[in-house]
Amino acid sequence: MSEYKVALIGFGGVNRALAQLAADNNAQWKQELGFELKIVGISDLHLGAAVCPDGFDLQALRELPAEKGALSRLPGGKKEAATEEVIETSGADIVAEATFTNAVNGEPASSYCRLALTRGISVVTTNKGPVAFHAEALKRVAAEHGVYFEYEGAVMSGTPVIRLGRELLAGSALKGFEGILNGTSNFVLSSMESGLSFSEALEKAQRLGYAEADPTADIEGHDVRLKVVILANELLGAKLKSADVPCKGISGLTLQNIQDAVAANARWKLIGSASKMADGTIRASVEPRMLPLENSLTGVGDAVNAVTFKTGLLGDVTVRGPGAGRIETAYALLADIISIHKAKTAKGN
Amino acid sequence: MSEYKVALIGFGGVNRALAQLAADNNAQWKQELGFELKIVGISDLHLGAAVCPDGFDLQALRELPAEKGALSRLPGGKKEAATEEVIETSGADIVAEATFTNAVNGEPASSYCRLALTRGISVVTTNKGPVAFHAEALKRVAAEHGVYFEYEGAVMSGTPVIRLGRELLAGSALKGFEGILNGTSNFVLSSMESGLSFSEALEKAQRLGYAEADPTADIEGHDVRLKVVILANELLGAKLKSADVPCKGISGLTLQNIQDAVAANARWKLIGSASKMADGTIRASVEPRMLPLENSLTGVGDAVNAVTFKTGLLGDVTVRGPGAGRIETAYALLADIISIHKAKTAKGN
Repeated sequence: MSEYKVALIGFGGVNRALAQLAADNNAQWKQELGFELKIVGISDLHLGAAVCPDGFDLQALRELPAEKGALSRLPGGKKEAATEEVIETSGADIVAEATFTNAVNGEPASSYCRLALTRGISVVTTNKGPVAFHAEALKRVAAEHGVYFEYEGAVMSGTPVIRLGRELLAGSALKGFEGILNGTSNFVLSSMESGLSFSEALEKAQRLGYAEADPTADIEGHDVRLKVVILANELLGAKLKSADVPCKGISGLTLQNIQDAVAANARWKLIGSASKMADGTIRASVEPRMLPLENSLTGVGDAVNAVTFKTGLLGDVTVRGPGAGRIETAYALLADIISIHKAKTAKGN
Repeated sequence: MSEYKVALIGFGGVNRALAQLAADNNAQWKQELGFELKIVGISDLHLGAAVCPDGFDLQALRELPAEKGALSRLPGGKKEAATEEVIETSGADIVAEATFTNAVNGEPASSYCRLALTRGISVVTTNKGPVAFHAEALKRVAAEHGVYFEYEGAVMSGTPVIRLGRELLAGSALKGFEGILNGTSNFVLSSMESGLSFSEALEKAQRLGYAEADPTADIEGHDVRLKVVILANELLGAKLKSADVPCKGISGLTLQNIQDAVAANARWKLIGSASKMADGTIRASVEPRMLPLENSLTGVGDAVNAVTFKTGLLGDVTVRGPGAGRIETAYALLADIISIHKAKTAKGN
């Protein structure tokens, strides 16, 4: 197939960036990757919905204002969201799901994913919710319907982490991982190293757009905990739920703690980790740790993320890259589509 | 296929480690990866040759002394190397080529690889020679014969670099890379940071087994240059030869240079790099560079290696891991075989 028809669920920063990347790069992708993307449907809680089975004009999408009901200006558009209708009537081959993460039960995104898969439509998502709560079930539904469920962007945006662990480190006797998996909290810690108090650092992060108005999920480790659940279940065969992972954030660290560490040639980092125990069980946690300078995560400052894979045959392998960003996260969706394209091409369809 | 018959060309540290890994892990691999390995032939300049189409007893291979002619003790063994015969008569599905790197023309390893491929046998290699000099031609021969030529171990042992750049960063608009690609020279630089002179540091590296008796290729950047050629050709579509890459090693750096950098919050590193220019040409080099602490390569000390991929959509992505080691390099061969297995399974044969 040299063209994929994509329905976008959520039209915030990430899916907008995907549409923009397609507008800018389709010609090159066709040559380099073997396919181009058409956007055939969009649904967004705020912006409304639109369906265009022949593909929207990508330039018009780019210019669409982020105003309530704006999708009604497109052909086939209306002011209210209509996710099920877009999934079912747009003729999409792939649904790109990029709505908000519900950390309680992964809904309604999980239901959207399930609906698409049962209709024989592959799903790519950057949403931690469906993956943390239902990855195994959704992969099974995908397999039953001969389609794919991919989610590289659920951890560290487009930086290859899930696929690196699952595919490129296969057979390396993976025993665990530890990572800096939240850019906001890491930025706050880095800023405190240069002398800001916790609240000054947090304000700075908010001013620069790194932190939400309510920064609790970032600061208290809840965001990291979901990512630990995703990676442990995916790479170590765990069956963890969030409640199984003890979680402590960085709000208890004082400027004095931070500066004592620097004086001792160390750094405080918020570390999400999981390890395979001798009895085969998986132990996971989220907590601030004081790391010595030699640790490959210690030098990872500001909003950058990194994960160290602990392997039996290779020792430590660390990948470091962006953990957020519109384009960076949209690239994760593209990487998922590339993976689907390769799998379909190898099967000869 | 649930079993691959492997012929080992070279029976030094790396291929011995592969045989040992198979002895220890075949049962688990069969379950986890879907295949096990039989060793059906071995040829080694020093140890001789042996062919056993039903597969050698892996325990006996493990116990074989590293003495001249030792392979003559095995069934079907003799005291002289017999590479062509082993390739042609062992019934191998895969040749694992791990002989020495000839930095002048890649021979005789390149001819061994070509022979195997033309006989319809896939090749996995950790040898920089055939890859730096003939990767494109050997991939073409492999494709013509419906088999595979894989070489993850040619750069940074089993740390995923080639496949990370080629597969997981596909579509990321890769513009270039820079890396610490030689453990010996990096170990020498790290040791000089703690006060050793160049020659003391080199002696220490030799004592610990990091440096060869003749350390020229490591210290003067020739080893890095071959790796730059391999990565630039593979990932940036360059057509570089070694002579196209200006190369300067670390022997000109004084203890004073090193310590001045430390005082300035920087570190000297031997950097191999390549970049795509605006006109599409590729510019590559090997040279010592003084990196600021913020650079993600600066904290990579001792014999560890790392590469930063410079991408348009993700910014910088760095992977860091071992660059050498018997088991670590043997894992690269396993990773290549896993890749071949996946490709064959996807095609349904």
